[in-house]
Amino acid sequence: MPVHPVLIDGRWRESKASGVFNADNPTTGEPLPDEFPVSKWEDCDAALAAAARAHVEIAKLPVEKLATFLEDYAARIEGASEQLVAIAHAETGLPAPTRLAQVELPRTTNQLRLAASAARSRSWSQPTIDTKLNIRAQFASIGPVWVFGPNNFPFAFGSMSGGDFAAAIAAGNPVIAKANTSHPGTTRLFAELAQQAADAIGLPPGTVQLLYRTSHADGERLVADPRTGATGYTGSRKAGLALKAAADKAGKPIYLELSSVNPVFMLPGALAERGDKLAEEFAGSCLMGTGQFCTNPGFVVLIAGAESEKFIAAVAERFQAAPAGVLLSRGVARSLGEGVQTLLSAGAEVVVGGQPADGPGFRYANTLLRTTGAKFLAQPEALQTEAFGNASLFVVAKDAGEAAALIDHLEGSLTGCIYSHTGGADDELYARLEPRMRPRVGRLLNDKMPTGVAVSPAMNHGGPYPATGHPGFTAVGIPAAIHRFARLDCYDNVRAERLPEALRDKNPGGAWRLVDGAWTTADVVTTSS
Amino acid sequence: MPVHPVLIDGRWRESKASGVFNADNPTTGEPLPDEFPVSKWEDCDAALAAAARAHVEIAKLPVEKLATFLEDYAARIEGASEQLVAIAHAETGLPAPTRLAQVELPRTTNQLRLAASAARSRSWSQPTIDTKLNIRAQFASIGPVWVFGPNNFPFAFGSMSGGDFAAAIAAGNPVIAKANTSHPGTTRLFAELAQQAADAIGLPPGTVQLLYRTSHADGERLVADPRTGATGYTGSRKAGLALKAAADKAGKPIYLELSSVNPVFMLPGALAERGDKLAEEFAGSCLMGTGQFCTNPGFVVLIAGAESEKFIAAVAERFQAAPAGVLLSRGVARSLGEGVQTLLSAGAEVVVGGQPADGPGFRYANTLLRTTGAKFLAQPEALQTEAFGNASLFVVAKDAGEAAALIDHLEGSLTGCIYSHTGGADDELYARLEPRMRPRVGRLLNDKMPTGVAVSPAMNHGGPYPATGHPGFTAVGIPAAIHRFARLDCYDNVRAERLPEALRDKNPGGAWRLVDGAWTTADVVTTSS
Repeated sequence: MPVHPVLIDGRWRESKASGVFNADNPTTGEPLPDEFPVSKWEDCDAALAAAARAHVEIAKLPVEKLATFLEDYAARIEGASEQLVAIAHAETGLPAPTRLAQVELPRTTNQLRLAASAARSRSWSQPTIDTKLNIRAQFASIGPVWVFGPNNFPFAFGSMSGGDFAAAIAAGNPVIAKANTSHPGTTRLFAELAQQAADAIGLPPGTVQLLYRTSHADGERLVADPRTGATGYTGSRKAGLALKAAADKAGKPIYLELSSVNPVFMLPGALAERGDKLAEEFAGSCLMGTGQFCTNPGFVVLIAGAESEKFIAAVAERFQAAPAGVLLSRGVARSLGEGVQTLLSAGAEVVVGGQPADGPGFRYANTLLRTTGAKFLAQPEALQTEAFGNASLFVVAKDAGEAAALIDHLEGSLTGCIYSHTGGADDELYARLEPRMRPRVGRLLNDKMPTGVAVSPAMNHGGPYPATGHPGFTAVGIPAAIHRFARLDCYDNVRAERLPEALRDKNPGGAWRLVDGAWTTADVVTTSS
Repeated sequence: MPVHPVLIDGRWRESKASGVFNADNPTTGEPLPDEFPVSKWEDCDAALAAAARAHVEIAKLPVEKLATFLEDYAARIEGASEQLVAIAHAETGLPAPTRLAQVELPRTTNQLRLAASAARSRSWSQPTIDTKLNIRAQFASIGPVWVFGPNNFPFAFGSMSGGDFAAAIAAGNPVIAKANTSHPGTTRLFAELAQQAADAIGLPPGTVQLLYRTSHADGERLVADPRTGATGYTGSRKAGLALKAAADKAGKPIYLELSSVNPVFMLPGALAERGDKLAEEFAGSCLMGTGQFCTNPGFVVLIAGAESEKFIAAVAERFQAAPAGVLLSRGVARSLGEGVQTLLSAGAEVVVGGQPADGPGFRYANTLLRTTGAKFLAQPEALQTEAFGNASLFVVAKDAGEAAALIDHLEGSLTGCIYSHTGGADDELYARLEPRMRPRVGRLLNDKMPTGVAVSPAMNHGGPYPATGHPGFTAVGIPAAIHRFARLDCYDNVRAERLPEALRDKNPGGAWRLVDGAWTTADVVTTSS
């Protein structure tokens, strides 16, 4: 079988490659037959050149073209759903019908259609008009966007199909997808569909491009290249921070979604009231998808007492009873084992699990660890090591004061949850914990598990460093996620006929615009221009 | 005279200092008598600790307190305007009545009052509500903000009085001002007034603090400190990029406003139509304030021809006739001379000026340089060296094609202007140049000089790197500038009574909120919470 070509400048062409790689089938642990290229800089350079040309051309097109592209692409994805689910299942081990077909694929096409709607209405660009001074501004496309997708959502966060892709395209940017190397075949199929849609709609070549893998050095070079507009990266902290350093140095925006332990506080009143129900809810959230979610609840704080012990026992029972799911890759299995070892070395104890599970494929036993608040306070860094997968650490604080104190040692997370008594028995403790928790998490939840990230305008799938690189941006949620891939364009005294459409007096598309301090969808009636 | 104390934790106290410094009187070139301390890390640490405490306390206060503080402070500034103008004139040499009293001081109090109004209405925080899913989000304070103000606007961009200060406070953040060392006495007087206002309104100690100077190493340490929320910096590129590198490494937002040449294109039709008027307009803009504006038009592109030569001669005449103004400091005079030398070494020629002017005080001759498009294309980096002050470089391109080509070599600037014929004679050329210019500047102007940055919601006083650190943020304009000092806080399924006021169903303050995709000031009527 020949090495798969890369997609550059509208054509599938042979990669200038330094080598090849295969993905594994995690369910069997065996490599899959397809060979994919490791691109040399030549491929990156060609893709950047084509993307820069495409960016200029896209700016001349009506936004309707971008919207119909996203919709056409969504329809093609639905048309190819069986193949997509089959290859993604082979490459990721994620359950084909329950997860990939019924949940992740509809979410993906929904995101693309929401992005289409945002592109069409232009409301995302927050057109702002000062009629008295005739100064007008809007967010506009930033230029070629690199998307590095994660291993755990081959569709909904995929480099060529997910939220970053949709947001970048909606803003008018070409996308160069860097496939996650654990599911290159899935990404390849998306790229075929995307290129077909781009051809059908008449988008310029280079609007969507695909490379599979580069050297680390070329990765750092491409995010910093003058032609790059911005980068979206979801993945490991180590690789992400290396890219961040390179992009920062060149003044190039990079949006990261890195590791996060997602602390959950189970307050005594809640446990007394509905401990068994919460054990069920927690175990479900923590083991779903073999725990491989960015928002997996990996760190639970309890306050010492009989109800907390009962809760731990109830969770342990469920962890033991549930089969050990398939992990996404050999690398995930290895780093889960390493993460658990780090926690154990720092003084955590095994409640259940704590070792690899029997095969076939990549598996690790459902793992519940515990430690004390005092031990955590002695080694807070080691004891919040992310063990990405089906594992969680319970920290039993001796009292409410210790529970509150340990919050101050938590790194930034995407989410933080507080479960409390429905009748108000925990209200005082809630009021004590919440102000400490709030600045450390992007999304604060009550009585709800953090897994399941709704695509809502009010979502924040982001959070303080090191969960992300900047606490003001979200990776999920239309229109907010689009702003990441935009620059602010101001027009001062620019003649009416030279303004971009969204900033003219007439507002035929009905975009929401901030006119003289008030949001409106109406035309501007008076102007001093 | 004793060394001036620093303002930490609500009290003026002796600095833990490694040394002292004096400012100069730029009009005479002589040092001023007051001695100010160079703080050691101990001062920075104490200020950070106090600011972190203040941040927690401010969050508990009604936003009305912040608004009345800003208004009370503005009134105190007006009450002390004579002293402020006197000391700022002594420290900066800026004209006391025409500039400081009549322009900059009213602008400063206006900014503070706009920030007060934004704090009160909360519209800046963009409350976003999804009633169906009961997910709600808003921008909220980010934590202690360091403000490094520039030398050229002792009031309107001052560390303790300017746009960054106002924006940071409006978002609910304590501010630690690092005085610009060329006007420490002015900043000290502002800090006295600000602390008086904070005491009068009852803001916590540590809401406003002042240090005068630190070592470079401590500067890099403080922007990266875990207690720091964000930093606003306006000043030289070298110092700014050193702070950026330190902040980036720690994942701390830093907003920079650095050097910018602010290209101006004078198209042939405009020159033929109104060349003499444009020479007058250009010379006024370029020499105003001795050219010491971030948006000073330092780089003008002309297309070879008789009209361009006439324009150059007309500008040269005005530059020669105008007296050489006072520069802000010895350092500004030195770096202006160095900048001009760099341009000359790269092949620019002197039209007028090009050497220091006779005293008293810090002065440099009004300087007009010229070069060709071909020379620029051969050395684009050197020939866009910023010569901050009363100097400008004219680049005469041989034709429209060369003029267009050189745009691609321009670094990011805050502004870019195109002057064109009012009757349409330049329209074709405009259409060719604008798409190349647009991505390289934050604010694009037509037929208007870039100096004069209106405080408008539609303003972008920002731009692509290296003019700033991120092309999506503006340093001027309320409410947009406030977002820099905020993080995005999401609430998922959080009980109604636990939500921050702006996210509850009732909207008594009438903030603009994005509810289920539509902007409204109304209450939320239906909720699933």
